[in-house]
Formats: sequence, C-alpha cells, structure tokens
Amino acid sequence: MLKIAIDAMGGDFGPEPIIDGLIAALRINTAFSAIAVGRKEELLKLIPPEYLRRIEILDCNDVISMQDHATDALKRKDSSIYQAIELVKNGQADAVVSAGHSGASMSLATLRIGRIKGVTRPAIATLMPTSENQNTLVLDVGANVDCDEKNLFEFAVMGQIYAQDVLKLDEPIIGLLSNGEEESKGNEVTRAAYELLANSQIKNFAGNVEGSDIFKGTVDVVVCDGFIGNILLKTAEGVADTIGQILKKNLKRSLISIAGAVLMRKVFKSLKVRVDYAEYGGAPLLGVKAPVIIAHGKSNPKAIKNAINQAISAASSRLEQDIEDKLAKYRNF
Amino acid sequence: MLKIAIDAMGGDFGPEPIIDGLIAALRINTAFSAIAVGRKEELLKLIPPEYLRRIEILDCNDVISMQDHATDALKRKDSSIYQAIELVKNGQADAVVSAGHSGASMSLATLRIGRIKGVTRPAIATLMPTSENQNTLVLDVGANVDCDEKNLFEFAVMGQIYAQDVLKLDEPIIGLLSNGEEESKGNEVTRAAYELLANSQIKNFAGNVEGSDIFKGTVDVVVCDGFIGNILLKTAEGVADTIGQILKKNLKRSLISIAGAVLMRKVFKSLKVRVDYAEYGGAPLLGVKAPVIIAHGKSNPKAIKNAINQAISAASSRLEQDIEDKLAKYRNF
Repeated sequence: MLKIAIDAMGGDFGPEPIIDGLIAALRINTAFSAIAVGRKEELLKLIPPEYLRRIEILDCNDVISMQDHATDALKRKDSSIYQAIELVKNGQADAVVSAGHSGASMSLATLRIGRIKGVTRPAIATLMPTSENQNTLVLDVGANVDCDEKNLFEFAVMGQIYAQDVLKLDEPIIGLLSNGEEESKGNEVTRAAYELLANSQIKNFAGNVEGSDIFKGTVDVVVCDGFIGNILLKTAEGVADTIGQILKKNLKRSLISIAGAVLMRKVFKSLKVRVDYAEYGGAPLLGVKAPVIIAHGKSNPKAIKNAINQAISAASSRLEQDIEDKLAKYRNF
Repeated sequence: MLKIAIDAMGGDFGPEPIIDGLIAALRINTAFSAIAVGRKEELLKLIPPEYLRRIEILDCNDVISMQDHATDALKRKDSSIYQAIELVKNGQADAVVSAGHSGASMSLATLRIGRIKGVTRPAIATLMPTSENQNTLVLDVGANVDCDEKNLFEFAVMGQIYAQDVLKLDEPIIGLLSNGEEESKGNEVTRAAYELLANSQIKNFAGNVEGSDIFKGTVDVVVCDGFIGNILLKTAEGVADTIGQILKKNLKRSLISIAGAVLMRKVFKSLKVRVDYAEYGGAPLLGVKAPVIIAHGKSNPKAIKNAINQAISAASSRLEQDIEDKLAKYRNF
C-alpha cells in the first residue's frame, strides 16, 4: 500500500485545510495511507478517531514560515517540511505533498531526496487551462531563473514523460516557448535549445510556440526557463483578475446588467472551475528521485485532496525510471 | 504645421482602412497635413477630393509584405515603407506611421533615421489596460530578443520620458519586470539592471514588479527584454481570448445564460473598449531621432486615426531631446 507523507503545518491557513483535504482523499481512495507531519497535539484534534488507523502522525515542532529563507530550511531539521521529505528519503513514504514554503520544499527535495541520474536541475511544472477540454503542462515555472539550452532540453523530456506517465496523455506534443513560431525566432538560449531538441531522438517536438498557444492547447507541454515561466503565470493570473474586475465594475453601473449577471452566475461558476488552481491540486517538482508535489500556500481542502491524488498517481507510475532512461536515450550532447 | 508621413500600403487589408483612418484624423485635427506613400492611382480613388489639399501623395510601387524578410527592406528603395521613412530622414515629414511589416519598419527607422545619441538599441513600447482608469506602458515588446542590463537601463529612461512627454503623466513610476518583488529576485541580467537603476539618479524607480502588476497599474512603465515582452503580450491576448471563448461556450449551454448574455452585452462592449488595441493606435519605436509609430497589421480606421494622433503628440513634444539629455545625465556606467 502506498504511503504519502504530508507536511501538515506549512500552509498559510495552518493544519486544518490540510487535514480536511487528507481525509477527503482517504475517503475516496482506500488504497493508500498517510503520515501527517507536524505538532501531534494540534493534529490529533483535527483527525476523526476512525481515520487514525490510516493516518500516522510524526510529531515535530518547527514550521518554516513564508518569511524564512529557503536556505534556513536545511538547518532546521525539526521542521515539518524537513521531516516529511526525510520520510521519503528514508523509504518510509513513497511521495510527499507540501503546501509550505515552496523554495524550502524544492531545496530540501533536491538536496535530501536527490536528483534523478541525468537531471541537472529539477523543474516545477504546472497545468494551465485552455478553452478546450484539456490543459497545458508548463515548465519550468519558477525553480530556475537562469537556464541554458541543456536545462531546457531536460525540462522538455521530463515534461513529456510526466504528461505520458502521470497525466496519461497519448504521445504528448512538446513546444518550446518563443517569440514566434519560425525556427529562426528565439533568444540565444532558446535557439540553442531548439537545435538540441530538433537533432535529438525525442518524439513529437513541435518546434516553437507562442504565449497564446498555451491557452489554445496547441501542444501538451510548453518549455521555458523559470524566470519567464513565473512571469507568464503571474501575467495570466493578472489578466484573468483584471477582466473579472472590469466586468464587476461595469456591472455595478446598470441595473439591467445586474439582472444579466445574476442569470450568468452559473456560467461564471463553471468558468471558475476551469481556471481554479484547486482543481489541479499542486505542481510536481520534476527531476527528483521521488514524487514531490508543491501545493499552493492558500490551498483549500479540495486543492490538498487533488495534490494527494497527484502524488498517488505519480508514485504509482514509472515516472522517475522513465525520466532516467529517456534522458540517457535522447541526450546527444 | 506638422507633417505626418504614412505608409498607405503596408497593412493586412490594403490602403483602404489606412486612408479612412487618415481622413478621420484630419477631420478632428486641423493642425497637421499628411504625405501618403503608395500607389498613387489606388490612393487617389480612396481620397475624397476635398482632402487632397491636406494629403500629398508620394507615388511608389513596391510593398514589403509580411512574408518578406526585414533585411530585404533595406534594398527595396521603392517600397512604401522605405519611402515613408526617407521623408522623415530628409526632414520632409516630422513623424511616420506604418501598419506594415514591423521588422522592416524597425530596421529602416533605426538605420535610415538613426538612433538618438546615447541609445544602444531602440525599443517598442505598448500600452496594456488595467482595471483602473489608466494604462501601463510596457517595453521592449519585440525589438530586441537578447538584452543586457545597459539595454534595460536605457529602456527604463526612454519609457519614463515617453510616459511624461507624450502620455502626459506626472512623475511616472518605473518597475523592472521580475519573478518577485524582492531586490534579490531576477535572472542575471535583471539583477544587474536593478543595480544600475537603483544606483543612478533616475527618479521614481520602484524596483521589481511581477507579471500581475502590469494589469493592476502598480507602476506606469514596466521594463523587460523583447523576448519576454513578446511572450507576455501574447500570453495576455491568449488568456483574454480563452476567457471569452469559455464564456461563449458555456453561454450556448443554457437558455437562461443566453438571456443573461443579451443583457450583459453593454458590459462586454465597454470591456472590449478597455482591451482593444485600436483604442491605443500603435506602438512607438523609442530611441530613434524622430517619432515612428508601428500600428497593428490588422488596424482598422480607428486604430490608424489613433496612431496618427500618437505621432502628432510625439512630434509636438521634446521626446527625442529629453531622451538624449536624460540618458547623458542618468548614465553611470
């Protein structure tokens, strides 16, 4: 039976939504058990007794807060995120979910669990919604601000394998994010990455794609460096928020539009489902030796439940082995 | 009286929307005249005789199409864009507007009109809408894919002066696009640009801003390289389109939402005005010795009219002199 470690303390709203999400996950999936890492006394109050059979508690007192530096995390061995990662490192858990300090989770995962053979730098992948019934996996969205072409090549391989093994897509197509579709487009690093990918044995490399392609679903996996990935994520959030706010402001101006808005509430609600991160759960850190799912600090129970499901899917797949094998096979530099 | 040169042939829909836009501009502003560059015979058919007093036609036969390479433009001296730029170079016009091949317009403007003293690379600036009643000027959005910190420094100075002299903003605030607000954030080039800006005498440098800040209107001017600028522009367009499409699809599903949508049409229409590029007209190429406004290839008459107004505002300002003076004053490297 799979065992999932969960940092129960790291989220912005404390342990309650995390434990609630964990219980929701246990309720629908009887094939796993969990180790909740955090202050035992607090956690015991939140767990209904009938779930204590399937939730072990690993007591520890320290919590890395959002204000702390990622580098501190390595020294604070009694913190919930350190201990949760250590469970995976020691083979006591198969995967880990954290809604805590994402920099700390990344550093600890990379240094304690370790990188897959052939991976220079792990990358964070996230799903973006499209107007079709599918999502686009984008990586890296924040782990590495300065990347060379070899890093981007590895991201492409890791993203494709995640899309295949965990998202269960058939022959996922990769695009390289650039400032135009033509082969000649791109900055220096992107053009070099294009060369590496085009001359490798990797399948289904569709060449360059543009920012708008992410939301059209032109390809399944979009590759970029973590600096650009962060900017595009925040830009997308900003545009969506702004459109929402402009609509809201204009709505207030006329009674007739208020009537319209009431009628359209259902539509907006279904739209929210499409763009809501809680639907996807968390972002996998790809390239480390075991599944690490980084959830949003503001995760509600639903987001945590979905993050745990992602961890289970990843832990039940051949993700890490496939990344190692394919990197060895495709690499030509 | 100001004289504006306009490439009448370069747009995706031929000369008609361009001449219509020019006439609309002449109608509301009696203080300028124009030189329309293109096939005289075609243009004469589109210009009402009473406007021929204020529109000179410069006859030329060649047109650079979107499929041509920007580098070809330098050799094809009988093309409408070449001739329009040449009018400014020779002092026969004060500014130029083109809806044609933007790469060709940029190269010709840079090489024929020439760079302002102190400018290493001209940059394209564009306005993005916010939820408040203001816009954010973003540059570079496509002229330069690989930039160093000195280029970004110059973009900051040029953007601030354009916001002040042409957009008439009082003490415009500059932000540097990065993956977080803290000083320590950024890739190598961005961190170096931060240093240059923070240690210069430039006023109102607000430090790093994130992708979402563009649409919140946190600052007036956002600086990035042209690779990232292109990606964020396309990402913003993609998100807006996708939200529109998801809404539309969902609307079709229920009668009640159709009723709502009819009532909300006014709201959507006013939203469209906020995000419609036609409202802004075109994107100025900053850093060349005379105003060059690059309009969208798909410009309608309204967009052309607004692009001409931008050219007039820029040509009536101290833009180029201020850029030269301020670059000399602020530069500390």
